[in-house]
Amino acid sequence: MFIARVTGSVVSTQKAAAMVGHKLLVVEPYRLDEKSRGSLVTTGRTFIAVDTLGAGLDDFVLVVQGSSARLTPETAKLPIDAAVIGIVDAVTTAKQSIYKRE
Amino acid sequence: MFIARVTGSVVSTQKAAAMVGHKLLVVEPYRLDEKSRGSLVTTGRTFIAVDTLGAGLDDFVLVVQGSSARLTPETAKLPIDAAVIGIVDAVTTAKQSIYKRE
Amino acid sequence: MFIARVTGSVVSTQKAAAMVGHKLLVVEPYRLDEKSRGSLVTTGRTFIAVDTLGAGLDDFVLVVQGSSARLTPETAKLPIDAAVIGIVDAVTTAKQSIYKRE
Amino acid sequence: MFIARVTGSVVSTQKAAAMVGHKLLVVEPYRLDEKSRGSLVTTGRTFIAVDTLGAGLDDFVLVVQGSSARLTPETAKLPIDAAVIGIVDAVTTAKQSIYKRE
Amino acid sequence: MFIARVTGSVVSTQKAAAMVGHKLLVVEPYRLDEKSRGSLVTTGRTFIAVDTLGAGLDDFVLVVQGSSARLTPETAKLPIDAAVIGIVDAVTTAKQSIYKRE
Repeated sequence: MFIARVTGSVVSTQKAAAMVGHKLLVVEPYRLDEKSRGSLVTTGRTFIAVDTLGAGLDDFVLVVQGSSARLTPETAKLPIDAAVIGIVDAVTTAKQSIYKRE
Repeated sequence: MFIARVTGSVVSTQKAAAMVGHKLLVVEPYRLDEKSRGSLVTTGRTFIAVDTLGAGLDDFVLVVQGSSARLTPETAKLPIDAAVIGIVDAVTTAKQSIYKRE
Repeated sequence: MFIARVTGSVVSTQKAAAMVGHKLLVVEPYRLDEKSRGSLVTTGRTFIAVDTLGAGLDDFVLVVQGSSARLTPETAKLPIDAAVIGIVDAVTTAKQSIYKRE
Repeated sequence: MFIARVTGSVVSTQKAAAMVGHKLLVVEPYRLDEKSRGSLVTTGRTFIAVDTLGAGLDDFVLVVQGSSARLTPETAKLPIDAAVIGIVDAVTTAKQSIYKRE
Repeated sequence: MFIARVTGSVVSTQKAAAMVGHKLLVVEPYRLDEKSRGSLVTTGRTFIAVDTLGAGLDDFVLVVQGSSARLTPETAKLPIDAAVIGIVDAVTTAKQSIYKRE
Protein backbone atom coordinates (compact mmCIF):
# COMPACT_ATOMS: atom_id res chain seq x y z
CA MET A 1 0.00 0.00 0.00
CA PHE A 2 1.03 3.62 -0.19
CA ILE A 3 0.04 6.87 1.46
CA ALA A 4 -1.63 9.34 -0.89
CA ARG A 5 -3.27 12.73 -0.66
CA VAL A 6 -6.76 13.17 -2.06
CA THR A 7 -6.45 15.95 -4.62
CA GLY A 8 -9.62 15.70 -6.66
CA SER A 9 -12.42 13.62 -8.09
CA VAL A 10 -13.49 12.15 -11.42
CA VAL A 11 -16.96 12.01 -13.00
CA SER A 12 -17.72 9.35 -15.58
CA THR A 13 -21.22 8.56 -16.84
CA GLN A 14 -20.35 6.06 -19.59
CA LYS A 15 -18.72 3.31 -17.57
CA ALA A 16 -18.73 -0.38 -16.73
CA ALA A 17 -22.17 -1.11 -15.22
CA ALA A 18 -20.75 -2.35 -11.90
CA MET A 19 -19.09 1.03 -11.33
CA VAL A 20 -22.36 2.97 -10.97
CA GLY A 21 -22.56 4.63 -7.55
CA HIS A 22 -18.88 4.30 -6.69
CA LYS A 23 -16.93 7.46 -5.92
CA LEU A 24 -13.71 7.96 -7.86
CA LEU A 25 -10.96 9.97 -6.20
CA VAL A 26 -7.82 11.49 -7.68
CA VAL A 27 -5.02 10.48 -5.31
CA GLU A 28 -1.36 11.51 -5.31
CA PRO A 29 1.13 9.12 -3.68
CA TYR A 30 3.46 10.64 -1.09
CA ARG A 31 6.77 9.37 0.29
CA LEU A 32 9.04 10.25 3.15
CA ASP A 33 11.48 13.03 2.39
CA GLU A 34 14.61 11.06 1.51
CA LYS A 35 17.11 13.21 3.38
CA SER A 36 15.48 13.97 6.70
CA ARG A 37 12.60 11.48 6.76
CA GLY A 38 10.91 14.34 8.61
CA SER A 39 8.03 15.07 6.26
CA LEU A 40 5.81 13.62 3.56
CA VAL A 41 6.54 14.81 0.04
CA THR A 42 4.71 14.18 -3.21
CA THR A 43 5.90 11.66 -5.79
CA GLY A 44 4.20 13.66 -8.52
CA ARG A 45 2.23 10.64 -9.67
CA THR A 46 -1.56 10.45 -10.09
CA PHE A 47 -3.86 7.48 -9.53
CA ILE A 48 -7.62 7.08 -9.49
CA ALA A 49 -8.98 5.04 -6.56
CA VAL A 50 -12.45 3.97 -5.42
CA ASP A 51 -13.42 5.37 -2.01
CA THR A 52 -15.79 3.65 0.40
CA LEU A 53 -14.80 5.56 3.55
CA GLY A 54 -15.84 9.13 2.76
CA ALA A 55 -12.35 10.59 2.45
CA GLY A 56 -12.29 14.33 1.86
CA LEU A 57 -10.14 16.66 -0.20
CA ASP A 58 -6.57 16.93 1.15
CA ASP A 59 -6.98 13.91 3.45
CA PHE A 60 -4.10 11.45 3.49
CA VAL A 61 -5.38 7.96 2.76
CA LEU A 62 -4.04 4.44 2.54
CA VAL A 63 -4.42 3.04 -0.98
CA VAL A 64 -4.25 -0.65 -1.90
CA GLN A 65 -3.46 -1.71 -5.46
CA GLY A 66 -4.09 -4.76 -7.60
CA SER A 67 -6.50 -7.62 -7.01
CA SER A 68 -6.57 -6.84 -3.27
CA ALA A 69 -8.55 -3.69 -4.06
CA ARG A 70 -11.46 -6.08 -4.55
CA LEU A 71 -11.11 -7.57 -1.04
CA THR A 72 -13.51 -5.21 0.76
CA PRO A 73 -17.25 -5.90 0.96
CA GLU A 74 -18.03 -2.74 -1.04
CA THR A 75 -15.55 -3.39 -3.85
CA ALA A 76 -15.86 -7.14 -4.35
CA LYS A 77 -16.14 -8.03 -8.04
CA LEU A 78 -15.59 -4.46 -9.24
CA PRO A 79 -13.23 -3.99 -12.22
CA ILE A 80 -10.86 -1.82 -10.17
CA ASP A 81 -7.18 -1.96 -9.21
CA ALA A 82 -7.02 0.71 -6.49
CA ALA A 83 -9.14 1.43 -3.43
CA VAL A 84 -8.93 3.55 -0.30
CA ILE A 85 -8.78 1.20 2.70
CA GLY A 86 -8.00 3.73 5.43
CA ILE A 87 -7.94 7.41 6.29
CA VAL A 88 -4.57 8.23 7.83
CA ASP A 89 -4.65 9.80 11.31
CA ALA A 90 -0.93 9.87 11.97
CA VAL A 91 2.45 8.92 10.53
CA THR A 92 5.32 8.53 12.98
CA THR A 93 9.02 7.91 12.40
CA ALA A 94 11.89 7.40 14.82
CA LYS A 95 12.41 11.07 15.21
CA GLN A 96 9.01 12.59 15.31
CA SER A 97 5.39 12.73 14.33
CA ILE A 98 5.56 13.74 10.70
CA TYR A 99 1.82 13.93 10.05
CA LYS A 100 -1.22 14.31 12.27
CA ARG A 101 -4.75 14.76 10.95
CA GLU A 102 -6.46 17.83 12.33
CA MET B 1 -6.66 3.04 -12.17
CA PHE B 2 -5.26 5.95 -14.14
CA ILE B 3 -6.57 8.58 -16.51
CA ALA B 4 -5.32 8.22 -20.07
CA ARG B 5 -5.91 9.87 -23.41
CA VAL B 6 -6.81 7.70 -26.37
CA THR B 7 -4.16 8.42 -28.97
CA GLY B 8 -4.50 5.59 -31.48
CA SER B 9 -5.43 2.02 -32.24
CA VAL B 10 -3.72 -1.28 -32.98
CA VAL B 11 -4.58 -3.92 -35.57
CA SER B 12 -3.49 -7.52 -35.05
CA THR B 13 -4.74 -10.44 -37.11
CA GLN B 14 -2.51 -13.20 -35.71
CA LYS B 15 -3.58 -13.23 -32.08
CA ALA B 16 -4.88 -15.34 -29.22
CA ALA B 17 -8.24 -16.73 -30.37
CA ALA B 18 -10.19 -15.12 -27.51
CA MET B 19 -9.06 -11.67 -28.65
CA VAL B 20 -10.97 -11.76 -31.95
CA GLY B 21 -13.47 -8.90 -32.15
CA HIS B 22 -12.00 -6.84 -29.31
CA LYS B 23 -10.89 -3.29 -30.03
CA LEU B 24 -7.35 -2.38 -28.99
CA LEU B 25 -6.65 1.24 -28.14
CA VAL B 26 -3.35 3.04 -27.72
CA VAL B 27 -3.70 4.98 -24.46
CA GLU B 28 -1.33 7.49 -22.88
CA PRO B 29 -1.53 7.94 -19.09
CA TYR B 30 -1.88 11.51 -17.84
CA ARG B 31 -1.21 12.99 -14.42
CA LEU B 32 -1.92 16.25 -12.66
CA ASP B 33 0.62 18.97 -13.32
CA GLU B 34 2.84 18.67 -10.24
CA LYS B 35 3.26 22.39 -9.59
CA SER B 36 -0.19 23.87 -10.04
CA ARG B 37 -2.40 20.77 -10.10
CA GLY B 38 -4.37 22.89 -12.57
CA SER B 39 -4.12 20.73 -15.67
CA LEU B 40 -3.61 17.20 -16.92
CA VAL B 41 -0.20 16.52 -18.47
CA THR B 42 1.12 13.45 -20.25
CA THR B 43 3.42 10.94 -18.56
CA GLY B 44 4.89 10.02 -21.94
CA ARG B 45 4.09 6.36 -21.43
CA THR B 46 2.11 4.13 -23.82
CA PHE B 47 -0.23 1.24 -23.01
CA ILE B 48 -2.59 -0.86 -25.07
CA ALA B 49 -6.05 -1.38 -23.54
CA VAL B 50 -9.20 -3.22 -24.60
CA ASP B 51 -12.19 -0.93 -25.08
CA THR B 52 -15.81 -1.99 -24.56
CA LEU B 53 -17.33 1.48 -24.25
CA GLY B 54 -16.74 3.00 -27.68
CA ALA B 55 -14.15 5.55 -26.62
CA GLY B 56 -13.00 7.85 -29.41
CA LEU B 57 -9.71 9.43 -30.34
CA ASP B 58 -8.58 12.10 -27.84
CA ASP B 59 -11.13 11.02 -25.23
CA PHE B 60 -9.87 10.78 -21.68
CA VAL B 61 -10.66 7.36 -20.27
CA LEU B 62 -10.29 5.47 -17.02
CA VAL B 63 -8.00 2.44 -17.42
CA VAL B 64 -7.82 -0.51 -15.03
CA GLN B 65 -4.74 -2.74 -14.96
CA GLY B 66 -3.99 -6.28 -13.89
CA SER B 67 -6.39 -9.12 -13.22
CA SER B 68 -9.21 -6.64 -12.58
CA ALA B 69 -9.24 -5.85 -16.31
CA ARG B 70 -11.01 -9.19 -16.61
CA LEU B 71 -13.81 -8.19 -14.21
CA THR B 72 -16.25 -6.80 -16.78
CA PRO B 73 -18.77 -9.02 -18.58
CA GLU B 74 -17.13 -8.27 -21.97
CA THR B 75 -13.56 -8.99 -20.87
CA ALA B 76 -14.00 -12.00 -18.58
CA LYS B 77 -11.43 -14.70 -19.35
CA LEU B 78 -9.55 -12.61 -21.90
CA PRO B 79 -5.72 -12.70 -21.73
CA ILE B 80 -5.53 -8.95 -21.08
CA ASP B 81 -4.11 -6.73 -18.35
CA ALA B 82 -5.67 -3.37 -19.23
CA ALA B 83 -9.21 -2.28 -20.07
CA VAL B 84 -11.16 0.95 -20.41
CA ILE B 85 -13.82 0.99 -17.68
CA GLY B 86 -15.06 4.56 -18.08
CA ILE B 87 -15.04 7.59 -20.34
CA VAL B 88 -14.09 10.62 -18.28
CA ASP B 89 -16.59 13.51 -18.29
CA ALA B 90 -14.86 15.74 -15.77
CA VAL B 91 -11.88 15.99 -13.45
CA THR B 92 -12.13 18.44 -10.57
CA THR B 93 -9.59 19.53 -7.97
CA ALA B 94 -9.83 21.88 -5.01
CA LYS B 95 -9.21 24.87 -7.14
CA GLN B 96 -11.05 24.29 -10.31
CA SER B 97 -12.43 22.08 -13.03
CA ILE B 98 -9.32 20.93 -14.83
CA TYR B 99 -11.03 18.90 -17.54
CA LYS B 100 -14.52 18.83 -18.97
CA ARG B 101 -15.53 16.71 -21.95
CA GLU B 102 -17.12 18.71 -24.73
CA MET C 1 -0.59 -4.61 -22.51
CA PHE C 2 2.26 -2.96 -24.32
CA ILE C 3 3.79 -3.03 -27.79
CA ALA C 4 7.25 -4.55 -27.91
CA ARG C 5 9.80 -5.47 -30.53
CA VAL C 6 11.20 -9.00 -30.56
CA THR C 7 14.96 -8.56 -30.24
CA GLY C 8 16.23 -12.01 -29.30
CA SER C 9 15.65 -15.33 -27.60
CA VAL C 10 16.67 -17.17 -24.46
CA VAL C 11 17.73 -20.79 -23.99
CA SER C 12 17.35 -22.47 -20.61
CA THR C 13 17.69 -26.18 -20.00
CA GLN C 14 17.46 -26.26 -16.20
CA LYS C 15 13.99 -24.86 -15.66
CA ALA C 16 10.60 -25.44 -14.07
CA ALA C 17 9.25 -28.66 -15.59
CA ALA C 18 6.13 -27.00 -17.00
CA MET C 19 8.29 -24.67 -19.11
CA VAL C 20 9.70 -27.42 -21.32
CA GLY C 21 8.84 -26.79 -24.98
CA HIS C 22 7.87 -23.14 -24.57
CA LYS C 23 9.72 -20.52 -26.60
CA LEU C 24 11.19 -17.61 -24.66
CA LEU C 25 11.58 -14.31 -26.48
CA VAL C 26 13.53 -11.22 -25.54
CA VAL C 27 11.10 -8.32 -26.05
CA GLU C 28 11.73 -4.58 -25.81
CA PRO C 29 8.72 -2.37 -25.00
CA TYR C 30 8.16 0.59 -27.33
CA ARG C 31 6.14 3.77 -26.81
CA LEU C 32 4.90 6.60 -28.97
CA ASP C 33 7.41 9.36 -29.49
CA GLU C 34 6.29 11.90 -26.90
CA LYS C 35 6.67 15.00 -29.02
CA SER C 36 5.21 14.09 -32.39
CA ARG C 37 3.38 10.84 -31.62
CA GLY C 38 4.49 10.01 -35.14
CA SER C 39 6.70 7.01 -34.51
CA LEU C 40 7.38 4.15 -32.11
CA VAL C 41 10.52 4.54 -29.99
CA THR C 42 12.15 2.13 -27.58
CA THR C 43 11.79 2.43 -23.81
CA GLY C 44 15.16 0.73 -23.35
CA ARG C 45 13.65 -1.94 -21.11
CA THR C 46 13.95 -5.71 -21.58
CA PHE C 47 11.41 -8.43 -20.75
CA ILE C 48 11.24 -12.13 -21.45
CA ALA C 49 7.89 -13.38 -22.76
CA VAL C 50 6.50 -16.76 -23.80
CA ASP C 51 5.47 -16.92 -27.44
CA THR C 52 2.70 -19.16 -28.82
CA LEU C 53 2.15 -17.33 -32.12
CA GLY C 54 5.45 -17.81 -33.93
CA ALA C 55 6.62 -14.21 -33.75
CA GLY C 56 9.88 -13.53 -35.55
CA LEU C 57 12.85 -11.32 -34.89
CA ASP C 58 12.04 -7.58 -35.24
CA ASP C 59 8.29 -8.22 -35.24
CA PHE C 60 6.23 -5.88 -33.11
CA VAL C 61 4.06 -7.89 -30.74
CA LEU C 62 1.42 -7.28 -28.11
CA VAL C 63 2.58 -8.46 -24.67
CA VAL C 64 0.31 -9.14 -21.69
CA GLN C 65 1.73 -9.11 -18.16
CA GLY C 66 0.74 -10.62 -14.85
CA SER C 67 -1.73 -13.41 -14.13
CA SER C 68 -3.49 -12.75 -17.44
CA ALA C 69 -0.46 -14.20 -19.24
CA ARG C 70 -1.87 -17.54 -18.11
CA LEU C 71 -5.25 -16.95 -19.79
CA THR C 72 -4.46 -18.55 -23.15
CA PRO C 73 -4.95 -22.29 -23.77
CA GLU C 74 -1.20 -22.76 -24.37
CA THR C 75 -0.03 -20.91 -21.26
CA ALA C 76 -2.60 -22.00 -18.68
CA LYS C 77 -0.93 -23.00 -15.40
CA LEU C 78 2.56 -21.97 -16.53
CA PRO C 79 4.69 -20.07 -14.00
CA ILE C 80 4.95 -17.04 -16.30
CA ASP C 81 4.06 -13.36 -16.06
CA ALA C 82 4.40 -12.27 -19.70
CA ALA C 83 3.12 -13.72 -22.98
CA VAL C 84 2.77 -12.63 -26.58
CA ILE C 85 -0.96 -12.46 -27.40
CA GLY C 86 -0.77 -10.82 -30.82
CA ILE C 87 1.52 -9.93 -33.68
CA VAL C 88 1.01 -6.27 -34.55
CA ASP C 89 0.02 -5.50 -38.15
CA ALA C 90 -0.52 -1.78 -37.83
CA VAL C 91 -0.51 1.09 -35.35
CA THR C 92 -2.49 4.17 -36.28
CA THR C 93 -2.81 7.57 -34.58
CA ALA C 94 -4.87 10.63 -35.41
CA LYS C 95 -2.34 11.88 -37.82
CA GLN C 96 -1.02 8.89 -39.61
CA SER C 97 -0.13 5.24 -39.83
CA ILE C 98 2.97 5.02 -37.65
CA TYR C 99 3.69 1.35 -38.18
CA LYS C 100 2.72 -1.17 -40.82
CA ARG C 101 4.08 -4.71 -40.92
CA GLU C 102 5.63 -5.60 -44.24
CA MET D 1 10.17 -9.52 -2.81
CA PHE D 2 12.44 -6.71 -1.76
CA ILE D 3 14.50 -5.79 1.28
CA ALA D 4 13.24 -2.74 3.13
CA ARG D 5 14.06 -0.86 6.29
CA VAL D 6 11.29 -0.16 8.78
CA THR D 7 11.24 3.62 9.16
CA GLY D 8 7.94 4.34 10.86
CA SER D 9 4.32 3.42 11.45
CA VAL D 10 0.86 4.56 10.43
CA VAL D 11 -2.29 4.98 12.53
CA SER D 12 -5.69 4.83 10.88
CA THR D 13 -8.97 4.56 12.76
CA GLN D 14 -11.41 4.91 9.86
CA LYS D 15 -10.52 1.89 7.80
CA ALA D 16 -11.81 -1.25 6.12
CA ALA D 17 -13.28 -3.41 8.91
CA ALA D 18 -10.94 -6.34 8.24
CA MET D 19 -7.92 -4.13 8.93
CA VAL D 20 -8.71 -3.63 12.62
CA GLY D 21 -5.85 -4.91 14.79
CA HIS D 22 -3.26 -5.11 12.04
CA LYS D 23 -0.04 -3.15 12.42
CA LEU D 24 0.90 -0.86 9.54
CA LEU D 25 4.59 -0.17 9.00
CA VAL D 26 6.29 2.46 6.88
CA VAL D 27 8.97 0.57 4.92
CA GLU D 28 11.66 1.92 2.62
CA PRO D 29 13.02 -0.44 -0.07
CA TYR D 30 16.79 -0.80 -0.23
CA ARG D 31 19.00 -2.09 -3.04
CA LEU D 32 22.62 -3.10 -3.40
CA ASP D 33 24.98 -0.23 -4.09
CA GLU D 34 25.34 -0.44 -7.86
CA LYS D 35 29.06 0.19 -8.04
CA SER D 36 30.56 -1.92 -5.27
CA ARG D 37 27.65 -4.17 -4.35
CA GLY D 38 29.19 -3.80 -0.89
CA SER D 39 26.37 -2.14 0.97
CA LEU D 40 22.61 -1.64 1.06
CA VAL D 41 21.41 1.81 -0.04
CA THR D 42 17.96 3.32 -0.02
CA THR D 43 15.80 3.61 -3.14
CA GLY D 44 14.04 6.61 -1.64
CA ARG D 45 10.64 5.00 -2.09
CA THR D 46 8.01 4.52 0.63
CA PHE D 47 5.51 1.68 1.04
CA ILE D 48 3.10 0.72 3.78
CA ALA D 49 3.13 -2.99 4.73
CA VAL D 50 1.24 -5.12 7.25
CA ASP D 51 3.49 -6.72 9.85
CA THR D 52 2.74 -10.01 11.58
CA LEU D 53 6.26 -10.74 12.88
CA GLY D 54 6.90 -7.92 15.33
CA ALA D 55 9.51 -6.08 13.28
CA GLY D 56 11.02 -3.07 15.01
CA LEU D 57 12.16 0.34 13.89
CA ASP D 58 15.29 0.20 11.66
CA ASP D 59 15.00 -3.56 11.15
CA PHE D 60 15.55 -4.79 7.64
CA VAL D 61 12.59 -6.90 6.53
CA LEU D 62 11.53 -8.94 3.53
CA VAL D 63 8.39 -7.50 1.93
CA VAL D 64 6.09 -9.37 -0.46
CA GLN D 65 3.80 -7.46 -2.80
CA GLY D 66 0.58 -8.17 -4.64
CA SER D 67 -1.91 -10.96 -4.08
CA SER D 68 0.78 -13.07 -2.39
CA ALA D 69 0.65 -10.68 0.58
CA ARG D 70 -2.57 -12.50 1.41
CA LEU D 71 -0.89 -15.93 1.52
CA THR D 72 -0.04 -15.99 5.22
CA PRO D 73 -2.50 -17.24 7.84
CA GLU D 74 -2.66 -13.80 9.48
CA THR D 75 -3.26 -11.84 6.28
CA ALA D 76 -5.62 -14.14 4.36
CA LYS D 77 -8.55 -12.19 2.90
CA LEU D 78 -7.20 -8.79 3.96
CA PRO D 79 -7.45 -5.97 1.39
CA ILE D 80 -3.66 -5.50 1.35
CA ASP D 81 -0.92 -5.65 -1.28
CA ALA D 82 2.21 -5.68 0.93
CA ALA D 83 3.23 -7.71 3.97
CA VAL D 84 6.37 -8.40 5.97
CA ILE D 85 7.20 -12.11 5.58
CA GLY D 86 10.61 -12.15 7.22
CA ILE D 87 13.01 -10.21 9.40
CA VAL D 88 16.40 -10.15 7.71
CA ASP D 89 19.32 -11.54 9.74
CA ALA D 90 22.02 -11.31 7.11
CA VAL D 91 22.67 -10.36 3.48
CA THR D 92 25.73 -11.85 1.83
CA THR D 93 27.28 -11.24 -1.58
CA ALA D 94 30.29 -12.77 -3.32
CA LYS D 95 32.65 -10.45 -1.61
CA GLN D 96 31.42 -10.06 1.88
CA SER D 97 28.70 -9.90 4.46
CA ILE D 98 27.01 -6.61 3.67
CA TYR D 99 24.45 -6.68 6.47
CA LYS D 100 24.22 -8.51 9.78
CA ARG D 101 21.48 -7.87 12.33
CA GLU D 102 22.82 -7.01 15.76
CA MET E 1 9.80 -12.37 -16.72
CA PHE E 2 13.21 -10.78 -16.67
CA ILE E 3 16.81 -11.93 -16.79
CA ALA E 4 18.73 -11.33 -13.58
CA ARG E 5 22.14 -12.10 -12.19
CA VAL E 6 22.40 -13.85 -8.83
CA THR E 7 24.47 -11.53 -6.67
CA GLY E 8 23.91 -12.79 -3.13
CA SER E 9 21.66 -14.47 -0.60
CA VAL E 10 19.49 -13.56 2.37
CA VAL E 11 19.14 -15.29 5.74
CA SER E 12 15.98 -14.83 7.79
CA THR E 13 15.06 -16.91 10.83
CA GLN E 14 11.95 -15.05 11.97
CA LYS E 15 9.69 -15.51 8.98
CA ALA E 16 6.32 -16.73 7.77
CA ALA E 17 6.13 -20.43 8.69
CA ALA E 18 5.66 -21.58 5.09
CA MET E 19 8.99 -20.03 4.13
CA VAL E 20 11.10 -22.40 6.22
CA GLY E 21 13.55 -24.32 4.02
CA HIS E 22 13.27 -22.06 0.98
CA LYS E 23 16.42 -20.44 -0.36
CA LEU E 24 16.29 -16.68 -0.84
CA LEU E 25 18.51 -15.17 -3.53
CA VAL E 26 19.48 -11.57 -4.15
CA VAL E 27 18.93 -11.05 -7.89
CA GLU E 28 19.76 -8.04 -10.05
CA PRO E 29 17.71 -7.54 -13.24
CA TYR E 30 19.69 -7.02 -16.43
CA ARG E 31 18.62 -5.56 -19.77
CA LEU E 32 20.05 -5.37 -23.25
CA ASP E 33 22.46 -2.50 -23.79
CA GLU E 34 20.19 0.08 -25.43
CA LYS E 35 22.61 1.29 -28.06
CA SER E 36 24.21 -1.86 -29.43
CA ARG E 37 21.94 -4.58 -28.06
CA GLY E 38 25.23 -6.48 -27.94
CA SER E 39 25.53 -7.14 -24.22
CA LEU E 40 23.59 -7.49 -21.00
CA VAL E 41 23.87 -4.56 -18.59
CA THR E 42 22.55 -4.14 -15.08
CA THR E 43 19.44 -2.10 -14.29
CA GLY E 44 20.81 -1.38 -10.81
CA ARG E 45 17.69 -2.76 -9.17
CA THR E 46 17.59 -5.47 -6.47
CA PHE E 47 14.96 -8.14 -5.89
CA ILE E 48 14.75 -11.16 -3.61
CA ALA E 49 13.55 -14.38 -5.28
CA VAL E 50 12.95 -17.94 -4.11
CA ASP E 51 15.15 -20.49 -5.86
CA THR E 52 14.17 -24.11 -6.47
CA LEU E 53 16.73 -24.89 -9.17
CA GLY E 54 20.05 -24.57 -7.36
CA ALA E 55 21.24 -21.40 -9.10
CA GLY E 56 24.72 -20.29 -8.11
CA LEU E 57 26.37 -16.94 -7.57
CA ASP E 58 26.79 -14.95 -10.82
CA ASP E 59 24.44 -17.24 -12.75
CA PHE E 60 21.94 -15.50 -15.00
CA VAL E 61 18.44 -16.71 -14.16
CA LEU E 62 14.91 -16.19 -15.40
CA VAL E 63 12.72 -14.61 -12.70
CA VAL E 64 8.91 -14.61 -12.69
CA GLN E 65 7.00 -12.03 -10.65
CA GLY E 66 3.56 -11.80 -9.12
CA SER E 67 1.05 -14.55 -8.48
CA SER E 68 2.69 -16.72 -11.15
CA ALA E 69 5.66 -17.18 -8.80
CA ARG E 70 3.36 -19.58 -6.97
CA LEU E 71 2.74 -21.72 -10.06
CA THR E 72 5.55 -24.24 -9.55
CA PRO E 73 5.11 -27.37 -7.43
CA GLU E 74 7.75 -26.17 -4.94
CA THR E 75 6.33 -22.67 -4.48
CA ALA E 76 2.59 -23.31 -4.49
CA LYS E 77 0.86 -21.45 -1.65
CA LEU E 78 4.00 -19.62 -0.55
CA PRO E 79 3.63 -15.91 0.29
CA ILE E 80 6.11 -14.91 -2.43
CA ASP E 81 6.02 -12.68 -5.51
CA ALA E 82 9.27 -13.70 -7.25
CA ALA E 83 10.80 -17.08 -8.11
CA VAL E 84 13.61 -18.42 -10.28
CA ILE E 85 12.03 -20.55 -13.02
CA GLY E 86 15.10 -21.15 -15.18
CA ILE E 87 18.86 -20.93 -15.30
CA VAL E 88 19.87 -19.12 -18.48
CA ASP E 89 22.21 -20.99 -20.82
CA ALA E 90 22.27 -18.51 -23.67
CA VAL E 91 20.85 -15.22 -24.88
CA THR E 92 20.92 -14.55 -28.60
CA THR E 93 20.00 -11.47 -30.63
CA ALA E 94 19.95 -10.78 -34.37
CA LYS E 95 23.57 -9.92 -34.39
CA GLN E 96 25.23 -12.34 -32.08
CA SER E 97 25.31 -14.54 -29.04
CA ILE E 98 25.42 -12.01 -26.22
CA TYR E 99 25.62 -14.46 -23.33
CA LYS E 100 26.67 -18.09 -23.03
CA ARG E 101 26.96 -19.93 -19.73
CA GLU E 102 30.33 -21.51 -19.20
